[in-house]
Amino acid sequence: MTTAPRFGSDVYGTRLARAAQLTADAGLDALIVSPGPDLRYLVGSRADTFERLTALVVPAAGAPRLVVARLEVPSLAESAVLDLGLEVDDWVDGQDAHAIALGALAAGSAVAVSEAMPALHVIPFAEKVGATPQLATPVLRELRMVKDDAEIEALRTAGAAIDRVHARMGEFLRPGRTEREVAADIAAAIVDEGHTGAEFVIVGSGPNGADPHHEFSDRIIEGTDIVVIDIGGPVEPGYNSDSTRTYCFAEPPAEVADAYAALQHAQSLAMAAVRPGVTAESIDAAARDALREQGLAEVFIHRTGHGIGLSVHEEPYIVEGNDLVLRPGMAFSVEPGVYFSGRWGARIEDIVVVTDDGGEPLNTRPHDLVVL
Amino acid sequence: MTTAPRFGSDVYGTRLARAAQLTADAGLDALIVSPGPDLRYLVGSRADTFERLTALVVPAAGAPRLVVARLEVPSLAESAVLDLGLEVDDWVDGQDAHAIALGALAAGSAVAVSEAMPALHVIPFAEKVGATPQLATPVLRELRMVKDDAEIEALRTAGAAIDRVHARMGEFLRPGRTEREVAADIAAAIVDEGHTGAEFVIVGSGPNGADPHHEFSDRIIEGTDIVVIDIGGPVEPGYNSDSTRTYCFAEPPAEVADAYAALQHAQSLAMAAVRPGVTAESIDAAARDALREQGLAEVFIHRTGHGIGLSVHEEPYIVEGNDLVLRPGMAFSVEPGVYFSGRWGARIEDIVVVTDDGGEPLNTRPHDLVVL
Repeated sequence: MTTAPRFGSDVYGTRLARAAQLTADAGLDALIVSPGPDLRYLVGSRADTFERLTALVVPAAGAPRLVVARLEVPSLAESAVLDLGLEVDDWVDGQDAHAIALGALAAGSAVAVSEAMPALHVIPFAEKVGATPQLATPVLRELRMVKDDAEIEALRTAGAAIDRVHARMGEFLRPGRTEREVAADIAAAIVDEGHTGAEFVIVGSGPNGADPHHEFSDRIIEGTDIVVIDIGGPVEPGYNSDSTRTYCFAEPPAEVADAYAALQHAQSLAMAAVRPGVTAESIDAAARDALREQGLAEVFIHRTGHGIGLSVHEEPYIVEGNDLVLRPGMAFSVEPGVYFSGRWGARIEDIVVVTDDGGEPLNTRPHDLVVL
Repeated sequence: MTTAPRFGSDVYGTRLARAAQLTADAGLDALIVSPGPDLRYLVGSRADTFERLTALVVPAAGAPRLVVARLEVPSLAESAVLDLGLEVDDWVDGQDAHAIALGALAAGSAVAVSEAMPALHVIPFAEKVGATPQLATPVLRELRMVKDDAEIEALRTAGAAIDRVHARMGEFLRPGRTEREVAADIAAAIVDEGHTGAEFVIVGSGPNGADPHHEFSDRIIEGTDIVVIDIGGPVEPGYNSDSTRTYCFAEPPAEVADAYAALQHAQSLAMAAVRPGVTAESIDAAARDALREQGLAEVFIHRTGHGIGLSVHEEPYIVEGNDLVLRPGMAFSVEPGVYFSGRWGARIEDIVVVTDDGGEPLNTRPHDLVVL
């Protein structure tokens, strides 16, 4: 078993202790954390079991335990579980893994489950404790939302790596090629520039750019297209990049240039609004109000951003209604867009980290509509 | 948007109608199905949204509806949703997507959720209906477990493709190479032979073969190693292969040959036991009892198999305690193994489809310990 890159065990020990404290503070008896970013955050495990329960149980009082199928025990070597000396309770097919995980937690216990836990496990836990569990998200987001220095450094590394891919876009993106061909080259460059994989590659040319979640297609890119390129992936030990720039091949018509200028202004206002003490929704409002003033509110059809770290999308979400107050160490995307159905779209996306007095952008490529 | 391969819309229409009937038969008011194999099975959708709710609501009475974020609406073109004329209720960031999904389903409704639905969505649904949902698995497995002719043909195609990869193993697997190098070549061959991707590649050499879920490492393969190769992936429209063979490079020592012979006998007995009317656990017992007679029960540390289809692991699970009665059209793996910790392991795995009077193996490579 190769040991996968992760932080030192002391980092995970501190996180587990804080998770237990926050669990107690929330009046919960225990968190139950299944494979996914929360488990990776707490013990450095990349487990991805589905029907066979893997669960880290973090009680408000007492030692954390890991419950895992016996045949998965060797994979613990890649995590911090053994170095931390956690109790490991293994089970074999046919045993009641949910009962083993609950252990001494009696019916009626207040447990919270990680948000990635599939219903396949949530519902047996609910039945055994006699109540629907709570979401562990409010507890874990307190930990995961505020990045420490090592995490921020990993996000900086990721941001610089994806900036290098955008800097090379002229190598890949040309009229006459299909979106798929361009996407394949970009995916290779994402790895070349230091990511462990290409988590997502969006090449939205012409009308496809008007679909924010278009990936890529066999459409042949035309010389008059506006092209949205939204790309990212993880760097070790698992922190993600995510940056969007919009490209074209000739000076755009005035209608495009005007809408793009409004978008660029909106994105810069939202970035400038980032600082401790303001709400997440205020950043969304900064971008949305600017577009509304230009009559473009209706074509900005998604939230302004999402937190980023071990997950590409995590707390804090930069969306109307989220009154979460920003704190130093929070990291998220600022990515307004304009979408003209059937015709074209544009988006500008940077990752930003909240500092003591503002925001540190992790993506520094020019924000103009790039004419290749 | 490229239309991804899927079955004709009539197939999905029939499945939805049967799902609604089974929902009514189970005394449920509705199924709520989120992205994953269940959604792909019912409407041909490959959606993989996480925090933004996508949900197919199948009421016991009335028409199914799809609830989806507005920015995901264009992706519906790849599914059968539009061809089937399903009602699509889109929502935008900031709206209460769970309330929109529940629609007219009042508090107290009996709803069941798909097993892949993350807690992030299960718990809001539970709070709104005032009770923990049930799992939709008992309803959906009735549909998904019994494959129709088109599905079986897709599984046959997948089985033949992975057999061609095993037939080429001498090209890849040699002493002096690392497991990682061999795995990379196998992954490429899995695609070359007709899969859309390599879902998993296990190269367990020497002591790593004793870990059933080892993937691959930088270990250099030695000439005296026993090597477990467990590989598979999907073929269009999404059905998976999964087959294991065990290899070596010289005549094995008697201890290995004897244990392997017992394993081969146990696997053949389990395959021969497959027919309609017997229980899933009886297939497990056939393999386990044969190994027990040779004193090898303790080194067979996992269940005998798992169903396969759109998921690599699905119902029916071939495990002690599962008294499900096999029916024609069910497809699953038969994969006993023996594991000697720190030394070596072996496994033999075929996919089998239950026929009217027995089982049709979908993997036909020789079952011997292959000396390359």
